[in-house]
Amino acid sequence: MAGASTSMRLRLPIACIALEVILIILFGVAVEYDHDVSGEAGHKTNTTHHDYENEFYYRYPSFQDVHVMIFIGFGFLMTFLQRYGFSSVGFNFLIAAFSLQLATLVQGFLHTIMTGGKIHVGVESMINADFCTGSVLISFGAVLGKTSPVQMLTMAVFEVILFSVNEFILLSLLNAKDAGGSMTIHTFGAYFGLMVTRVLYRPNLDKSNKKNSSVYHSDIFAMIGTLYLWMFWPSFNSAITLHGDIQHRTALNTYYSLAACTLSTYAFSALLNHEGKLDMVHIQNAALAGGVALGTAAEMMITPFGSMIVGFLAGAISVLGYRFITPFLESKLKIQDTCGVHNLHGMPGILGAIVGAITSLAATKEHYGNGLTAVFPKITSDFPASAQAGMQAISLVVTLGIALIGGIIVGFILKLPIYGAPSDSQCFEDGVYWEVYLPNAYCIELGCNNVSITM
Amino acid sequence: MAGASTSMRLRLPIACIALEVILIILFGVAVEYDHDVSGEAGHKTNTTHHDYENEFYYRYPSFQDVHVMIFIGFGFLMTFLQRYGFSSVGFNFLIAAFSLQLATLVQGFLHTIMTGGKIHVGVESMINADFCTGSVLISFGAVLGKTSPVQMLTMAVFEVILFSVNEFILLSLLNAKDAGGSMTIHTFGAYFGLMVTRVLYRPNLDKSNKKNSSVYHSDIFAMIGTLYLWMFWPSFNSAITLHGDIQHRTALNTYYSLAACTLSTYAFSALLNHEGKLDMVHIQNAALAGGVALGTAAEMMITPFGSMIVGFLAGAISVLGYRFITPFLESKLKIQDTCGVHNLHGMPGILGAIVGAITSLAATKEHYGNGLTAVFPKITSDFPASAQAGMQAISLVVTLGIALIGGIIVGFILKLPIYGAPSDSQCFEDGVYWEVYLPNAYCIELGCNNVSITM
Amino acid sequence: MAGASTSMRLRLPIACIALEVILIILFGVAVEYDHDVSGEAGHKTNTTHHDYENEFYYRYPSFQDVHVMIFIGFGFLMTFLQRYGFSSVGFNFLIAAFSLQLATLVQGFLHTIMTGGKIHVGVESMINADFCTGSVLISFGAVLGKTSPVQMLTMAVFEVILFSVNEFILLSLLNAKDAGGSMTIHTFGAYFGLMVTRVLYRPNLDKSNKKNSSVYHSDIFAMIGTLYLWMFWPSFNSAITLHGDIQHRTALNTYYSLAACTLSTYAFSALLNHEGKLDMVHIQNAALAGGVALGTAAEMMITPFGSMIVGFLAGAISVLGYRFITPFLESKLKIQDTCGVHNLHGMPGILGAIVGAITSLAATKEHYGNGLTAVFPKITSDFPASAQAGMQAISLVVTLGIALIGGIIVGFILKLPIYGAPSDSQCFEDGVYWEVYLPNAYCIELGCNNVSITM
Repeated sequence: MAGASTSMRLRLPIACIALEVILIILFGVAVEYDHDVSGEAGHKTNTTHHDYENEFYYRYPSFQDVHVMIFIGFGFLMTFLQRYGFSSVGFNFLIAAFSLQLATLVQGFLHTIMTGGKIHVGVESMINADFCTGSVLISFGAVLGKTSPVQMLTMAVFEVILFSVNEFILLSLLNAKDAGGSMTIHTFGAYFGLMVTRVLYRPNLDKSNKKNSSVYHSDIFAMIGTLYLWMFWPSFNSAITLHGDIQHRTALNTYYSLAACTLSTYAFSALLNHEGKLDMVHIQNAALAGGVALGTAAEMMITPFGSMIVGFLAGAISVLGYRFITPFLESKLKIQDTCGVHNLHGMPGILGAIVGAITSLAATKEHYGNGLTAVFPKITSDFPASAQAGMQAISLVVTLGIALIGGIIVGFILKLPIYGAPSDSQCFEDGVYWEVYLPNAYCIELGCNNVSITM
Repeated sequence: MAGASTSMRLRLPIACIALEVILIILFGVAVEYDHDVSGEAGHKTNTTHHDYENEFYYRYPSFQDVHVMIFIGFGFLMTFLQRYGFSSVGFNFLIAAFSLQLATLVQGFLHTIMTGGKIHVGVESMINADFCTGSVLISFGAVLGKTSPVQMLTMAVFEVILFSVNEFILLSLLNAKDAGGSMTIHTFGAYFGLMVTRVLYRPNLDKSNKKNSSVYHSDIFAMIGTLYLWMFWPSFNSAITLHGDIQHRTALNTYYSLAACTLSTYAFSALLNHEGKLDMVHIQNAALAGGVALGTAAEMMITPFGSMIVGFLAGAISVLGYRFITPFLESKLKIQDTCGVHNLHGMPGILGAIVGAITSLAATKEHYGNGLTAVFPKITSDFPASAQAGMQAISLVVTLGIALIGGIIVGFILKLPIYGAPSDSQCFEDGVYWEVYLPNAYCIELGCNNVSITM
Repeated sequence: MAGASTSMRLRLPIACIALEVILIILFGVAVEYDHDVSGEAGHKTNTTHHDYENEFYYRYPSFQDVHVMIFIGFGFLMTFLQRYGFSSVGFNFLIAAFSLQLATLVQGFLHTIMTGGKIHVGVESMINADFCTGSVLISFGAVLGKTSPVQMLTMAVFEVILFSVNEFILLSLLNAKDAGGSMTIHTFGAYFGLMVTRVLYRPNLDKSNKKNSSVYHSDIFAMIGTLYLWMFWPSFNSAITLHGDIQHRTALNTYYSLAACTLSTYAFSALLNHEGKLDMVHIQNAALAGGVALGTAAEMMITPFGSMIVGFLAGAISVLGYRFITPFLESKLKIQDTCGVHNLHGMPGILGAIVGAITSLAATKEHYGNGLTAVFPKITSDFPASAQAGMQAISLVVTLGIALIGGIIVGFILKLPIYGAPSDSQCFEDGVYWEVYLPNAYCIELGCNNVSITM
């Protein structure tokens, strides 16, 4: 790709405007307000009380927490790179704003296959669209620094569709439980992205460019992302569960998993460094693995005790992944995983799927009381807990299959030389796609003007 | 003003203490708790159920989102300047903390004209006060870097009063709809601030001072502001609407408008740059125009389709404004608009007012069902939708009139040489009003002590 | 301690893993879901309505605001130090994740003394655990930069226990009111931490190390912490009050106190500087004192008028403390208070306790109506308001006693040479415990590789 134009002067406007116009037309044709958005439920003739029971009040705070995770959490987590902050937070913003619109359509379309009629939008569709967007951003983390924005928009188009198909198979056909998306969001997004970055392998990346690392301030910016993801993960896992004790329990279990995961992360980060020094990459990422690993089981009766064990394991696995598996993936399998999504989303996602399947085995009246059918609506005397556990396991296999095959195919689509991708020496550089003014160190002292850096 | 003292040693303490003492006295005389704050509704004798229906639970999450927009959103959006971060976030903090107190009094006083009795405070007054504060901060964005904190407090005193009068005329006398403040907040704040900065025109600003620009890290700080404004704008527009489907719909429409606006912003930012590079100023600001432009119509049945069209247009207009209109305003009309509030709040605010008027025309039983009188309480067979649309249009004219005339008058008040305003060469410099220690680049390497920069 | 190893290679993993394993075992033995987490209330047989009345919906938004204060607020407030950002935000993260788990157990254990049975967890225990964690982080602020992470974890173990004992004495035995923790959280955390730092006094700290100060960007990072603490303090003080008008009033009073405090802070910061320049340390900290000072009285009928007076005084006291008392504490009493917690939490906490006691004197039917017993359940004709005020005063004395004596004892425990504490010349340096890559100023210009700084 070296030498090819990276100009976005025409590519990006054409992509953005074409995609947005198509979205607007499809929204005009196929979308209508959900009944508690339009007021069609006829409540105006009822008591005020009805207005207080609008889904808005029971979902919107969760939605906003998820929204912050998508735009601030993912966006700032990726600003750790020294000269790629504009792109990290800026392309994250662009891709997310696009994906949530497309996801609303594709998820809604698949849902209407079951129900008929138009696509209904409201706070639930907003949360589901953000979930799909999260999966796209996980894949973005794998290819971060090595792709053009048009390439990312193209990836998002295909990934949103494949995500929605996989989600539909799991939740609607296999009746799997996965409220926090260990499988649908994390496993899918990670392995899809890893396959894409494998196909886009750049053999000369390391030799020509050392900017694939952090500097002091960029690591502190990244901690903003980490902490928002960590704090709001209980809201993420519980955002779309049934109301009442289930939602309450989901948030609580996730909170304990994350707390235990944090101590595990610090322990293994120090242990694996020959001077016993902590590594910011581990803290920024592995401490979040406890949220990923409880994405399936958090709504179940896993107990705080079980949640903490899962979180502790997730943190350990994740740090070990950064230390040993990421270098192996890069050197042996030619998978260049910029943010280490395999360690934060891939392995902990699989762990979460397994924990979910195992926890499903204990889905009995004894543990759940009358709440059993609320958590597991399919479980009956004819469909025992073991069958549910089997469906959970099959769901993981299906997810991995669609993610791996889909990622390879989309990787080849993204390899076409039409997207204005950066050359190897331009990777991890904001200046390729952004007007950048870097501070002149002398000038900070002396008050002279800034110098524009071009490349 | 060159050579005049900029010392805040007496000016700022006198201003802050005098204003706060007056506020405290007026609060002591005129303010009391709203009935669901004092418990006067006598619910203690009722069931617990009543406590769960306190307005607090249905408004406070929205309030906190708005609060974050005011203090983090506006504050950090303005940190883009390379050496004005302390002032941006710090004076934003001071002005906002003052304005919300004064706004509570002035808005409450005007409201009691209608109802009699004392000023009642509670979560609704907190939201309304933050809205008024937002308008003051928009004007602050126009004069950013060129004024002293005492000057800004003085501006806030007058602007809060004028804002409240305009708001009262629009909402209580003209019965206009403007829940998200396209007119009352954005149009008013922008044109008021533009007139103030016109009167305070500094002909030698460009020649003597090149600090009116960003550096790398300051642009990333500014993105914190942008993203919080973007994420929480649905809460802003819906914070004070009626409960139930209206509030739900308002948030939803705003969310779609912002998503479409973001794609439009990226498209036009790349298109207008001769190398096709994105400009951080556009991303930080124009991507928000979709929220401004739906400030009036978001609670109406504008549909996601309509919202996305409005958002798309708003983003395009805003980028075009930064590229073509801001330079024109500065060179021809002598309006130095530091943050480009004309592009983010001025033009999109007017667009929002027009969209609101047009959307009102469709305020029929057919579209709204029984919800019609909830959104448009004045519309009857004697007062048709077209009359409502007319009132919306008149409201825009009134707002522009009060903002323009008020801004000019207040601009001349602020021109008095008593506020310790900075000289031209001191503009955009934190060191004038803050103790500043800048990092010595060599010292970061060598570990020597910091050097204090004075001017 | 000079020359001793600071390696965390074994110390930190052993501490983290041992503590987490003990926590997990104790959670397995002693903890179970609260009834509205497990669904044991049997609601599945009831109406959907019941699910909407789950405590989750009335506490979780407050919890998340408090959570943001603990992790982002405290964490970023402490990033003001020029070379200690990783440790500030990173050790804050570690200590908080640990403390909230231990606090759940210790607070729950003391509560079960009253009620019997197992420890119940749910959103209320999450809030209470975060409150205890806040107190630990206040003490962390006093010793910031001079301690190892294992030392801090050890401090947290003891402080969580002592905090919980003191809290139990105040709230359960003395029947004191302290919803926002002026005494239990702020006074306790501050004086405990001050005693610890007194025992750990380092006579050569100033001579050998000048890094105990901020740089430009670190002060802007710290403002993120300040603003989140400021915005969400109304949620903090009201997070655990009774529902309804009491919670509403608590948030409202705190909001006014903070607004008045901010103007007072700016006034006194400028007044006490000989050039009239504002000091970022004051703005970052003193502007928050209004929240601390209303921690006891905010739920009472103190009125906005009273709240603003308290806030104004708190800001003034806090700035005066930074200017005059902190230097005195360091030079005369050998108390090195890195973050000035005496000014932000110590004195304002005592002020808050006194304000709470005085406000309790007005706890009459005349002021509270039927709400009296909701706020003051113990007040009857036999136990008048003056007795409540007496209990409030005794509570302050008890808190100071436990904090001061506990802090001294724990200080000596922390003085043992086993924790890998930094030498005097290593204080305020991230590089001791973290892998740090500092930006090479020349390289930003020239594109060369980063240089690793080791010490």
